[in-house]
Amino acid sequence: MAWRFALVIDPVASDIRRDDFSDTLAVIDPDGPALRVGDLSAQRGDGVFESLGVVDGHPQEVGPHLARLAHSAGLCDLPEPNLDQWRAAIDRAAAEAPAGESVIKLILSRGVEHGPAPTAWLTLADAPDNARSRTEGVRIAALDRGYALDVPARAPWLLLGAKTLSYAVNMAAIREAKRRGADDAVFVTSDGFVLEAPTASIVLRFGGRFVTPTPNAGILHGTTQLSLFAHLEQRGFETAYETVPVSDLGRADAAWLLSSVRLAAPISAVDGEAKAVDHAFTDELNAYLLSPRD
Amino acid sequence: MAWRFALVIDPVASDIRRDDFSDTLAVIDPDGPALRVGDLSAQRGDGVFESLGVVDGHPQEVGPHLARLAHSAGLCDLPEPNLDQWRAAIDRAAAEAPAGESVIKLILSRGVEHGPAPTAWLTLADAPDNARSRTEGVRIAALDRGYALDVPARAPWLLLGAKTLSYAVNMAAIREAKRRGADDAVFVTSDGFVLEAPTASIVLRFGGRFVTPTPNAGILHGTTQLSLFAHLEQRGFETAYETVPVSDLGRADAAWLLSSVRLAAPISAVDGEAKAVDHAFTDELNAYLLSPRD
Repeated sequence: MAWRFALVIDPVASDIRRDDFSDTLAVIDPDGPALRVGDLSAQRGDGVFESLGVVDGHPQEVGPHLARLAHSAGLCDLPEPNLDQWRAAIDRAAAEAPAGESVIKLILSRGVEHGPAPTAWLTLADAPDNARSRTEGVRIAALDRGYALDVPARAPWLLLGAKTLSYAVNMAAIREAKRRGADDAVFVTSDGFVLEAPTASIVLRFGGRFVTPTPNAGILHGTTQLSLFAHLEQRGFETAYETVPVSDLGRADAAWLLSSVRLAAPISAVDGEAKAVDHAFTDELNAYLLSPRD
Repeated sequence: MAWRFALVIDPVASDIRRDDFSDTLAVIDPDGPALRVGDLSAQRGDGVFESLGVVDGHPQEVGPHLARLAHSAGLCDLPEPNLDQWRAAIDRAAAEAPAGESVIKLILSRGVEHGPAPTAWLTLADAPDNARSRTEGVRIAALDRGYALDVPARAPWLLLGAKTLSYAVNMAAIREAKRRGADDAVFVTSDGFVLEAPTASIVLRFGGRFVTPTPNAGILHGTTQLSLFAHLEQRGFETAYETVPVSDLGRADAAWLLSSVRLAAPISAVDGEAKAVDHAFTDELNAYLLSPRD
């Protein structure tokens, strides 16, 4: 994977309306020194982020990603991002994207410790090759996220609904899943309900009905899942947000992990137990997800 | 608070023995660009850290801090740090410390995404003025950490015993405590046991007996608490590691938050209920903690 492009963004207040934000966007070398050692992103994982897929230069679902960036910022008491400015930064980066699939990452940090303002930047990189995950599927291991289903709503300081830079646990869960012979993890509550994967949403199919765990305070609302549900509804399928017991992982006739860059990865095994992959249907889903979407 | 000094460390394998690591330590401008935007510390809070107090140029408890850095690295599947190299870096930084109190921060990151090796750096900065916390004390709010006491041991991927860079929740808890009119938080389990503060250990006094929550997989073993217990034992007091129910916060005749830079901060209130501060005894503790310690 190669870094293609990076911008440092000088955040402006959310209520500032301008036609041109280019003087607030500084192109930098993605392989050169850029951030100060005191940046709170690096010191404490204190900030929020989004990852967008880019297909043939088209950034996917810009609106939903920016809405979630603003939502995460609010949960973390960060200043409200100026979404017009972020949109300008995304457009600037997308213009640099090569043909094929890329990733744009947006990062909003609390700033340099004792500094006056947040820091922000954007990167553009080649997407990893996800062909195998999309066709052969991913084996998942269910891992306890440590809390009961009712915790996030009563303990908002746990930031469980925010996409923060504090992803060490998410990365550790993926390593643990690999130790168990799987490819990815799915977090479950300590009282036995399905949450989400460390970097993806989960969707289960029961006949013509598609279910995903309710995106309450405990999980992120997946932008790819949202887009896919709209597509499925248009095709006449039923979709639902529900409290999903762990036993449903085995009961579902098919299941997918959904994320902005890997897109729809069919689940081929749960804790070592094989699960049927609907290859033809998965190909249709990924064809949709690779089409230009806003 | 001013940044005084920074070093970028080029990590060498833990088994390399050398008399001189200076060619692996590059002095940098702490206020200038240093880290790449792809560094996983900044992208995902993926790394570990330590903060050491420095008093009149003497770095405190270097051995225990380095031992904990290595322990955290192990829990996060990071390469074992070369402690001789880190010690050389600390010595180099301590030589730049002014009179009075400073902070040395050690950061070991998983490195640049898709890069070959970890990245590491060290900063030296003036310590904040902690006089008021040490004399008047800190009001604390008890906040649910969301998990039951038995969770950390059975879910090591939650990294609850590692000092990772993913501190967004710790920072959010302090903000929540301030919203509640307190100065700091103390985390408690969802089943009602005391854990630790977001950036400190807690010690409770019952007569001549000092108790701190058992540092199992769920909390860090505080270096300052360790040092203080040794001191208290030398003075003839009894010390103990125990499972501490939340009700003990009120029952203790005195209590302190202990950390490497703020040192002993007496707890003056718990959830709005005043607690007696033993000023003379606290002054003695801080006099000890400000003396040169290794």
